[in-house]
Amino acid sequence: MTAAAPRPRLEFWYEFASTYSYLSVMRIEDMARAAGVEVTWRPFLLGPVFLALGWNDSPFNIYPPKGRYMWRDLARLADKYDLPFRLPSQFPRNGLLAARVALVGVAEGWVAPFSRAVMRANFAEDRDIGDAVVIGELLAALGLPADAVLERAQTPENKLALRAQTELAVERGLFGAPNFRTGEELFWGNDRLEDALAWAATHAGESVRKLGAA
Amino acid sequence: MTAAAPRPRLEFWYEFASTYSYLSVMRIEDMARAAGVEVTWRPFLLGPVFLALGWNDSPFNIYPPKGRYMWRDLARLADKYDLPFRLPSQFPRNGLLAARVALVGVAEGWVAPFSRAVMRANFAEDRDIGDAVVIGELLAALGLPADAVLERAQTPENKLALRAQTELAVERGLFGAPNFRTGEELFWGNDRLEDALAWAATHAGESVRKLGAA
Repeated sequence: MTAAAPRPRLEFWYEFASTYSYLSVMRIEDMARAAGVEVTWRPFLLGPVFLALGWNDSPFNIYPPKGRYMWRDLARLADKYDLPFRLPSQFPRNGLLAARVALVGVAEGWVAPFSRAVMRANFAEDRDIGDAVVIGELLAALGLPADAVLERAQTPENKLALRAQTELAVERGLFGAPNFRTGEELFWGNDRLEDALAWAATHAGESVRKLGAA
Repeated sequence: MTAAAPRPRLEFWYEFASTYSYLSVMRIEDMARAAGVEVTWRPFLLGPVFLALGWNDSPFNIYPPKGRYMWRDLARLADKYDLPFRLPSQFPRNGLLAARVALVGVAEGWVAPFSRAVMRANFAEDRDIGDAVVIGELLAALGLPADAVLERAQTPENKLALRAQTELAVERGLFGAPNFRTGEELFWGNDRLEDALAWAATHAGESVRKLGAA
């Protein structure tokens, strides 16, 4: 008896404060559907990851030439992908609450549209995504019960879940965002999304076969 | 009277010790020809650029997760582009002599094949490109008078020319390699080569027009 080939899967690790994560959050769902790849959304926090590397701020702020380049690059890429973009008046914004809410969205099935709404608010509408009022409005606009969701997001269990996810990110060798992971392969950066999807589609089931052979 | 449209041009800033520069050095000539873009080869040294950012080594060595990722990414990309790759036993290698020789090659018209030979030696053959004997062999294999070229590379004028080129790199906001520059637009990273060529081809003559209108 031959087992059916497992469905190609891609883990998508992103942070709401991250500029290049914005591009991938907006692009990934349509592209993954076209490639026949299932996406696991993995919101996490870059702050602890950067601290582990010795940075107490975004490297785009610590290294001004990198930052100047990034903003121009981002504007060009938003143009190329036909995405709205407005230079945020604050960078990086605090993505903690949005990430906690996104974890609730993973459990309840609305993480993708919620993540796009948060990213649009941060990078196209210059709104403060660290503010619970803003997040509440975004939830309500999606037809979700904002108060109840915000309460679920702030339970000790959910706070611990985000902390565990971020610790897993460090363990898996992540050092920025966005990232795409399939099998044991890590792809870093919005510009690797196409390669990551192609890899997932081509190599689906390899690690399973390896396990079976061991 | 209408002036003829100027030929699209792209400055290519690269460093012989840089892993992602390897990929671009091998790819750029064919791709630029296909896009109708003329390439100005700009070898420079990353060491002084990194020092200006506070790094006394490659960031791939300073930040181990970044380094581990880069080597795997490089192997995957070499595979994708059908380029040979062997993990070098030393990284980064000293690209000073190769860069000085490359400047002579810019003046004499053989910079492209020489640069490819150096990159192959470093990243596919694990040879020490900091060694004058190795560089001499690469020059001879290209049918060039190795001793005479090495002598020209080490004149005070040529040493100063490389220093000036590296200072210009810092002034222009470069913080890594490879880079592609057209008009006032900077593109950083091998993964931006396609975008940079498209930009050069589409926007050729814009800065000239701007100057004319001023």
